[in-house]
Amino acid sequence: MRVVLIGSGNVATHLGKALFHSEYNVVQVYSRNKANAELLANELECEATDNLQLLEEADIYLLSVKDDALPAVLKEMGPKAGLLIHTSGTLPLELIRPFALHTAVVYPLQTFSKHKALDFLQIPIFTEASGPESAQMVNALANAISDTVLELSSEQRKHLHVAAVFACNFTNELYAIAADILKSHQLDFDLLRPLIQETAAKVQSQLPEAVQTGPARRGDTATLAEHQKSLQTNPEWQELYTVLTDGIRKRYAQQ
Amino acid sequence: MRVVLIGSGNVATHLGKALFHSEYNVVQVYSRNKANAELLANELECEATDNLQLLEEADIYLLSVKDDALPAVLKEMGPKAGLLIHTSGTLPLELIRPFALHTAVVYPLQTFSKHKALDFLQIPIFTEASGPESAQMVNALANAISDTVLELSSEQRKHLHVAAVFACNFTNELYAIAADILKSHQLDFDLLRPLIQETAAKVQSQLPEAVQTGPARRGDTATLAEHQKSLQTNPEWQELYTVLTDGIRKRYAQQ
Repeated sequence: MRVVLIGSGNVATHLGKALFHSEYNVVQVYSRNKANAELLANELECEATDNLQLLEEADIYLLSVKDDALPAVLKEMGPKAGLLIHTSGTLPLELIRPFALHTAVVYPLQTFSKHKALDFLQIPIFTEASGPESAQMVNALANAISDTVLELSSEQRKHLHVAAVFACNFTNELYAIAADILKSHQLDFDLLRPLIQETAAKVQSQLPEAVQTGPARRGDTATLAEHQKSLQTNPEWQELYTVLTDGIRKRYAQQ
Repeated sequence: MRVVLIGSGNVATHLGKALFHSEYNVVQVYSRNKANAELLANELECEATDNLQLLEEADIYLLSVKDDALPAVLKEMGPKAGLLIHTSGTLPLELIRPFALHTAVVYPLQTFSKHKALDFLQIPIFTEASGPESAQMVNALANAISDTVLELSSEQRKHLHVAAVFACNFTNELYAIAADILKSHQLDFDLLRPLIQETAAKVQSQLPEAVQTGPARRGDTATLAEHQKSLQTNPEWQELYTVLTDGIRKRYAQQ
């Protein structure tokens, strides 16, 4: 199966590498930035282009560009004979339907950084397809690179993506705030690393609601007031402290 | 060294077990709830009491009760000849000074759940002491159960605790919100577990600021608007979405 990869960002890079080690054949990488296209194409031992009108003939066109950029990219590519796949958590399948007879979605749920290796087989992939034939094709591709493949509707995928933003991007922002607090008091982020690891490890076998700890969970109002005071110089952190503390207190008041 | 353990909560339980496997000798457990005292005392093969006036003579009194409860417990215990230690992240050493000649703090930084085993040696312990002799004693105790022992002032410990609330308790609340979102759309929390694991794993070797991903980081405004819309039924989650997204956008706008 010949695949053209459109995009060279984090998701495109990891998908491309996973396909490179499968029976699928990535024949070309497109990026609007020629240097980026060439960098990834070199790794995947294929052609590079920055011209959407010069895409190779292929069985599968795999689109992995920013959601905002997708409509313009589709318009410039024009209609395709192969299976057209997008990789967005948020966009509906409908968006790409006019551009090919067979369309599908491959949404790998993971936080990809270009320079961190990942075992793609462990990453759940969520698929959606415009019909039985495209479903068969997209699931075959997903199964070639992942051990966990699930069909989801566009609506469900959108909610999964919102949940992922809370569990990953927002969690990472909380880590970053914690790092800021430590830094401003000459403390090393290293001190928190075992705690962060264990917090994530606990919910691998239990539900988060069952393992909450800390002053809000205990209703330790003296500590909560003390913490609020120590955050006085940063109104955004104070607001976060209030909203998240109230959320925790309400969650356990209901029980 | 004879130790009396005052408290039978999560921290007291894990500390007691760690000491049980060291050269320290836990001789008695106090809890205001007799059944809880006996439960832990059984595990530590020692006496149980629910009467603070009947504490055994010991070299070390290790206080691990809720911050709110500490002043009343101290008053009822009365002054002690041994080393008096508290385990609070927030309370200053000063609070217990009037109750013993030698006082100290042992603050183990971890999220303790009673029924999840932990390798205590991996948990950083932060100490503080009222003088050289108590410093020697408290550091010896901490080193007997942990590989990482650091002296911190009360002020630094308080800020470390605030940072830990963000990195652990608030993170776990975000996991819980993600679980709520999934549940309301008939999706299993299991789907997010690899993502949560990887988000925590990434910051073990890098700083959180260096590994952020997602729509806020990318400036993907269409997705951000779509997500806000999907959270319409829950104003608290919408507020969190806004504050955390703005935080991420500001963080990278500065760079």
